[in-house]
Parts: sequence; C-alpha cells; structure tokens
Amino acid sequence: MGHLLIDAALGRPVPRTPIWIMRQAGRYLPEYQAVRSQLSFLELCKSPDRAAEVSLQPVDILGVDDAIIFSDILIPLEGMGMNLVFDEGKGPLLSDPIRSRADVGRLTPYDAIRDNGYLPDAIRVLVRELGGRVPVIGFAGAPYTLACYAVEGKTGKQFARTKAFMLSDPEGFRALLGRLADAVADLLTAQIEAGASMVQLFDTWAGDLAPEQFRAFALPFAVEVIRKVRRPDVPFVYFVNGVAGKLHELQGCGATMLGIDWRIGLDEVRSVYGPTMPLQGNLDPCTLYAPPEAIEEQVARVLAENAGGPHVFNLGHGVLPDIPVAHVKHLVDCVKRLSVRGDS
Amino acid sequence: MGHLLIDAALGRPVPRTPIWIMRQAGRYLPEYQAVRSQLSFLELCKSPDRAAEVSLQPVDILGVDDAIIFSDILIPLEGMGMNLVFDEGKGPLLSDPIRSRADVGRLTPYDAIRDNGYLPDAIRVLVRELGGRVPVIGFAGAPYTLACYAVEGKTGKQFARTKAFMLSDPEGFRALLGRLADAVADLLTAQIEAGASMVQLFDTWAGDLAPEQFRAFALPFAVEVIRKVRRPDVPFVYFVNGVAGKLHELQGCGATMLGIDWRIGLDEVRSVYGPTMPLQGNLDPCTLYAPPEAIEEQVARVLAENAGGPHVFNLGHGVLPDIPVAHVKHLVDCVKRLSVRGDS
Repeated sequence: MGHLLIDAALGRPVPRTPIWIMRQAGRYLPEYQAVRSQLSFLELCKSPDRAAEVSLQPVDILGVDDAIIFSDILIPLEGMGMNLVFDEGKGPLLSDPIRSRADVGRLTPYDAIRDNGYLPDAIRVLVRELGGRVPVIGFAGAPYTLACYAVEGKTGKQFARTKAFMLSDPEGFRALLGRLADAVADLLTAQIEAGASMVQLFDTWAGDLAPEQFRAFALPFAVEVIRKVRRPDVPFVYFVNGVAGKLHELQGCGATMLGIDWRIGLDEVRSVYGPTMPLQGNLDPCTLYAPPEAIEEQVARVLAENAGGPHVFNLGHGVLPDIPVAHVKHLVDCVKRLSVRGDS
Repeated sequence: MGHLLIDAALGRPVPRTPIWIMRQAGRYLPEYQAVRSQLSFLELCKSPDRAAEVSLQPVDILGVDDAIIFSDILIPLEGMGMNLVFDEGKGPLLSDPIRSRADVGRLTPYDAIRDNGYLPDAIRVLVRELGGRVPVIGFAGAPYTLACYAVEGKTGKQFARTKAFMLSDPEGFRALLGRLADAVADLLTAQIEAGASMVQLFDTWAGDLAPEQFRAFALPFAVEVIRKVRRPDVPFVYFVNGVAGKLHELQGCGATMLGIDWRIGLDEVRSVYGPTMPLQGNLDPCTLYAPPEAIEEQVARVLAENAGGPHVFNLGHGVLPDIPVAHVKHLVDCVKRLSVRGDS
C-alpha cells in the first residue's frame, strides 16, 4: 500500500498535499523537552528507543504525514574520529577542526553500521512502533555543509576558513569532500536498509556559495551521494538552503524531489523545472509567529504558487524553538484542508 | 568632465572597470582604527571633518574609484526620535523598538538637514578635500531594512518580530514603511544636494523575504524612494542582499544600476536583464581570505561572467573587519589590470 507522502514525492496523484516539518521533533514541543531533561542531545541521538520516541511525538501531536528520525547531521564527523560536543546555547563544537590536506588524513575510515549504528537501529524501532501509519524519513548532511562544520569547528556565518581552504587548496578540499560523500552515502544507505521510505540530504550552507563554487565543490559531491543511494521506490530529496541562485545548476542532479527554501517562489522554481517536478516547501518559518488567519493565508499562497504540481508541503527551513505548538498544528490542519483536490 | 565610475554606472563606455568596496572605510584599515580610538562610532558619524577623513583613507591607500561617505544606515531612526546606541561587539541597539501601529505614532517628523545635517555636511567637506579626484557616493538604508532594525531593536537573523508585525497588521507595518521611505528620500536628496555624485540604497534584509512579501512590503517603498530621489545625471544603485529569488521583481524598479550579492552569477542576472543594464558586484567577501593568486582568479571569473556589460566592480557584501589590507589592495589592482578594454 502506498503512502500519501511517498506517492507525492514520486510525482503520483494524491488526494491532498502531504505535510511534514523540518525539525518537527524538537524543542518547541514540551513532550520533547521532557525527554531531553533526562539526557543530553547526543545521548538522545544515540539511544534508539528514545530517539524513536521523540520522532513519533509530532505524528501523534500534529498529525504530520511522516516521522523523520531524530538525529543530527554531524554524527558521521564523530564517526570519522572528530571530537563532537553539543554545548547548550552555543550549538555543536568540534575541537579538532580540519583545516588542511594533512588534517584530512586524520579522519578515520567510516562504516555507518559500526560507527553510527544507533541511527539505523532507531529507524528500525520507529518503523516497528509506527506499524505503517506513516512512512519514516532518513537524512544526512550534504558533503559541503559537513565540510563547513568540519573546517570551522562550529556553526558559522561567513565560513571564512572553509572558503580559504577551498580557494587555496582546491584538491585538498576535494579530498575532504570525497571522504564525506562516501560516509554520507553509506549512512543514507544504512537508513534505507533499516526501513526509511524516503531520505533527505540537507545542504544548509551551499546556497551561500558563488554559483561557480557551488558547481565545483557542493554539487558534484551531492550528485555522487544521490547516485550511490537513490533507488526507484525511495524518493531522494536534495534540500539546498538559499537555492534561488542555483536553480539551473540543480537540473539533472538526480534527486527525486527538490527541497526549496522560502526566499524564492515555487512559481519561479516551476518556471525552470516545469509542472511535473516534485517540490517540497516552502513557507517562511517565521510565518508561524503570525496569527492563525495569516498562517492560513500564507498556506493558500504557497499552494497557489505551486499551481497543482507534485508537492510535499514543508517549511522553507526548520521550525524555530519558540513557536507555539498550536500554530504548528494549525499549519498542518490548514494544509490538509486547503489542498484537497476536487474529484471529477 | 566625467568620472569613470559615474560613466560606468550610467552605461557609458569606459576604458576599464571601476571599483569600490562596500565598507571600504572601516575596521580592516589601521588608519581607520587610529581615528576610532579617539571617538565612538556615532561620534565619528556626527563629526563631518573626521567622517570625511576616514572616507578619504581608502582612496589614498587602495586607489578605489570613489569615496563613499562614512556614515550608518540607522541615523535617520535616531533622527526620528529613536534611542540609538552602538555597543562594541554587539552592534546597534534601539532600546525603544516599534512593534505596533501605535508605536509608529511615536516617531517624530523628520527633516534630513535638521536631524542628520552632519551627513550632508560631511559630504561637503569630502567633496572639497577630494577636489574632483574621485566622485563621492552617498547612501541610505532601504525602508524594509530600516523597519527590521526599528522593530527588532537590534541586528537580527530571523526577523521574527518584524514578520509577525508585517503579517498581523499589514497596514500598520505599511505606515511604518511609508514614514521611513519619506525620511530616506529626504536624506538621499540632501546628500545629492551636498555633492554626492551617486547614491546607493542598501536593502540588506529584503532578500530574506518570500517574494510575495518582497513585492508587498520591500519593493514599493524602495521604488517610492527611487522615484523621489533619482536624477538623470546621478546614478541610483539599489542593492538587495540575497537578490537571486527577486530578479524578476526588480525589473522596472527605476534604479540606474543594480547591486548584486555573490550568491548568484552576473551571467544569470544578465540572462534576465540583458547586456546593457549596469550591474555592480559581486565577489564573495570571503575570497579576500584566500591567497593572491586565488583572488586574481576570482576577479577574472566575475569579469568573465559579466561578459563586458556596464559594470562597477564591488564585493557582494561589505569587506570583513579581519581581512588583510594587502589583499584588498591586490583586489583593486587586479580589477584595474584585468578589466582594461583593448582598443581597436
């Protein structure tokens, strides 16, 4: 039996637009906070039962159309021997950043099952507990975005060191990206084998690149991952945050569906990709600070801009931690109500 | 007699591509730091002689093709009665943010000469001291970007309060934008009357809007400013940071030249605007962390992507405070050397 979300992502006809929300298992939910009060962020990632538990919460509370596994894009960096800690308030820190070709040699060989096996384990628990109610989504960070974290050692804004490494030693930087692409492909494959019905590659920082550098450093390694991982029945979503300047670059990247941030209209994306490409997105997460009527109006706008093409509704980036749960629930309800296709 | 930069901005033929650099008078220059050690940021803005002095520094040190007046986009907010302070390290703070239609009523009537007269005064000093060597550029923040600061009370990342105000009370938010457009038009006109040969409107945050909201809230008020200020012989530059998703929106905005950030290629911009629209930009500021050969290569790439159309070279955003001065000088030299047009 098909799932609404998988059908939409594969471009098949569906009775209404499915919806999920990036970071739907997260801090804005009191039920998530309750679990997190008992263990650290990284402990939660590494506890399959608890990770599955928080992944289920938004399915029960919001009625979203999938359960994305709770995890973090940085775990393969830890799996490759880097020292990863999550400092409350400061975000992730890697105390031993990779800043030269020699540093790349410090990364240890990676095996998803051996080094991050708790993630496919969590997917297996989640699939079992869901019993087919909604599909499970797996994910990973894209090679360029992981390289930004590996080089900066923390979340960045300008990525000065990353770009200095990239421009001064392109081959050394490509060696890093190649190692990351191998790891990411292995990790996504392990998630599919554990039962993920769709996977998403998050390229959070690639939109910040000049297009020439996007073509040279971000895209080829994402394409390599897509090529290794993609299966006909498991949709592959490539999400580039800040995608507007790279629309032509992404043509032919091999992804089943493109994730689109909110800074460009879906109508503009369709003007390049046509009416049959599956698109995911793209409501500005800040819309959820607005009152319910405004949220409904903006949902209607996004649906109108998509103009009936294959579509999975989502925010254009992750839900913010101080958003009222009632507003998120209202969003889900609006999408379900406003997107019903008339029969005939 | 014409100036190279003004000619290029007006689309006239020039022997080489002119260059200036956003934030060229600023913290990366030891000579600027020496002045700033004697007075605060806002005191410097308000001292016409000293503001003119730091505006001149990059002309002497780097050989750029204009002197942009040293100032700050937030001064009209202070001029309209808001309490503006610059906290070292934290950036600007406005302790009495505008968060409702009632708050908009708190803004006092604005007159550029009375409330920010030190800025046209500084331009007069600068024009006199330059004696025609290079033209003087004036500037202001665009209404939407100023509204972000007025509402958030500080520099933002997500602009949650701004968007909540915008979506919950569009008419109230438009009232704020209208007040800001009037002030900005008045301030730019005063700068032209004091001797500015070109003006730039900085819309630093408008690229973050969904296109529908860009069309509803950012664009019309920028267009109003352009309409009120533009003169045939004084180029008007509209710079939207993160412009890639709004290229079609900007067609017909009335600006003489568009400022382009680095996240989209000038070739892509020209595919919409054609070969005759003057464009300004668009090297990634982080390129200046790279070694000299890489800087030269990237300059050549930007020139090639522009493909010979009317062009003023610039970074795609402001120069960063920890960039080596020698790299900035090298950038200026590369542009001057690589962009010379063959005669014949």
